[in-house]
Amino acid sequence: MTKNQTKQSVCVDLGARSYPIQIGTQLLESAGEALAPILTRPNVVIVTDENVAKAQLTRLATGLERSNIEFETVVLPAGEATKNFAQLEFLTRRLIDHGVERGDTIIAFGGGVIGDLTGFAAAILRRGCRFAQIPTTLLAQVDSSVGGKTAINVPEGKNLIGAFHQPVMVIADIDALDSLPAREMRAGYAEVVKYGAINDEPFFAWLEENAGALLQGNADARAYAVKKSCEAKAAIVAADEREAGERALLNLGHTFGHAFEAAYGYSSDLLHGEAVALGMALAFDYSARKGMCPAADAERLKTHLRAASLPADIADLPADPKIDAAELAALMMQDKKVVGGKLTLILADAIGASRIVKDADLADIETFLKEKIAAARRS
Amino acid sequence: MTKNQTKQSVCVDLGARSYPIQIGTQLLESAGEALAPILTRPNVVIVTDENVAKAQLTRLATGLERSNIEFETVVLPAGEATKNFAQLEFLTRRLIDHGVERGDTIIAFGGGVIGDLTGFAAAILRRGCRFAQIPTTLLAQVDSSVGGKTAINVPEGKNLIGAFHQPVMVIADIDALDSLPAREMRAGYAEVVKYGAINDEPFFAWLEENAGALLQGNADARAYAVKKSCEAKAAIVAADEREAGERALLNLGHTFGHAFEAAYGYSSDLLHGEAVALGMALAFDYSARKGMCPAADAERLKTHLRAASLPADIADLPADPKIDAAELAALMMQDKKVVGGKLTLILADAIGASRIVKDADLADIETFLKEKIAAARRS
Repeated sequence: MTKNQTKQSVCVDLGARSYPIQIGTQLLESAGEALAPILTRPNVVIVTDENVAKAQLTRLATGLERSNIEFETVVLPAGEATKNFAQLEFLTRRLIDHGVERGDTIIAFGGGVIGDLTGFAAAILRRGCRFAQIPTTLLAQVDSSVGGKTAINVPEGKNLIGAFHQPVMVIADIDALDSLPAREMRAGYAEVVKYGAINDEPFFAWLEENAGALLQGNADARAYAVKKSCEAKAAIVAADEREAGERALLNLGHTFGHAFEAAYGYSSDLLHGEAVALGMALAFDYSARKGMCPAADAERLKTHLRAASLPADIADLPADPKIDAAELAALMMQDKKVVGGKLTLILADAIGASRIVKDADLADIETFLKEKIAAARRS
Repeated sequence: MTKNQTKQSVCVDLGARSYPIQIGTQLLESAGEALAPILTRPNVVIVTDENVAKAQLTRLATGLERSNIEFETVVLPAGEATKNFAQLEFLTRRLIDHGVERGDTIIAFGGGVIGDLTGFAAAILRRGCRFAQIPTTLLAQVDSSVGGKTAINVPEGKNLIGAFHQPVMVIADIDALDSLPAREMRAGYAEVVKYGAINDEPFFAWLEENAGALLQGNADARAYAVKKSCEAKAAIVAADEREAGERALLNLGHTFGHAFEAAYGYSSDLLHGEAVALGMALAFDYSARKGMCPAADAERLKTHLRAASLPADIADLPADPKIDAAELAALMMQDKKVVGGKLTLILADAIGASRIVKDADLADIETFLKEKIAAARRS
């Protein structure tokens, strides 16, 4: 350990494919030490984006050099648009150029876009190479780097093309969050709130107390929230790796959210985490409308999201996406959980008590969205 | 069963992912009956190529309609060039357009190109959909449709991007081979010879007796050869699904062969099966040169390949690929079995006694190829 380093560990328990998540400070500077025991040879390829390369690559390079690990770097454009077929082809061919073999480990160094794309490239390169996640955004640290879901987007929908492919290690360096723009921090925070909303009301209450400190840069609050989130996700993934059941809970807010992301063309007008915040608020509002959830719980969630400057209503969106409820409902039907044309939705009985509802009534959801859109336009 | 139908079955034993291979005549006409029990709803998408659509689609359509299974069809260009990123994107997006869900079954109806591409598309669409193989070429029936290897090519090499994804069923209709051009039939036959060469000298001897009847259209000889080949492949795949060891034996002739295919730009100047024939001949010649294998066995193999009008020497190739031994050796190093820069090669002690040789001497192989090329240019 380097001086002043802090480190905690969470295990994702998947039998032979189990792996550790390291969470702490100054972890990039010791990344080589962490990775060395799992490498088959002291060579890695780092895949990252322009922003992370500028802000954090020197730290990781130092950490690898200290352990005499050689590396090549592939730098991709930042942003959700990078998660496409063209970049997937570009990346896999660059990895081949760099001589990556089946036993080699590719490093995904960045946010959710880099993690999803690199993990998918690792899954299909030579029918499966190893990869490690070194997430540098809050969203990636608490959600996308853990659990092995990898994917790219197509114009028809988000994450529709991908693979389940577990990393061999996750290294979540809290210091990396210092260079994260405030808006990205808040967007990632939506996924933290999600874990409280799914099945942990005490954690939600803790967040209500500590969101300010966390968002303003308190490292202890950040490390605690990342660890709690990773533990929550690890438990669900260990129970249901390939989303045959319970794992779908992690999609709270995502089915509504994905439809809005698609409506905004996956642009930076609406970040994924922002869409998830709105999606959770809509899932709770819809649950309240159906009499499942007390209206007070939906209000409590929305109040907390707004306190974190996250959208909690269609009226909070940056600009009217100019689409209607029918289009949103159609986009929701692109969800991977659709079975026999029936939509599965994550709804809630209360904060900390979400559940999977199969065969949701799409016409009713469309009516609900129509009313929400009309109310937003009036406001 | 329809009148005059014959049917045999081979099981690929992979626990929860086990599946049957049906081999026989008039199987397309009863494909709906075979598929119905494994479908979650009576809808499938058939992926095929222009040639198969013309020659065989009516038969399969009849078979599905008889069991009230609705279908959409995606028709792709015929040929190895279709196994690329652009067609993968096109196909996955068409499957999304057709409403394919995770539990749905996609039908790969064609040769190895259609099977490899469709299987890969199924592996990554919504992170994994089901698919069935209905192979219509000898090569696909005896090799590529069985075992779950799916892939596309990139300019850097063949099958470098793909997934292990097992089909839920394989239906090998012997009648479909009747419309296969003679050259394609011979190319597929190379993979049949391979099973004899790997570990079954009596089957090799049977082929020496029966190749004529088989290639000329004898349905019983074809069904027997397909069944023997599928049994051989199923046994190896069941023992080593993800090619950690023994499965590499199935690559006999493929490491040399892939290099020549790449040298010919994967064009129709050299079909995959033809490259495998040449590759097997080179593997045996190289084994003989190393004193592993009697020269008589290498000659016996080459004599049989030539009897089937397959290339058994560089001199038999259609036109000089104008590349040298060093380039071929470099192309061989793109093999997915390369570990730590060391090449694994399948060599032989005799016909029916092939084995995996790790850490093959690349410089020595380059010298061998250089001599072979020089001899071919003199001839």
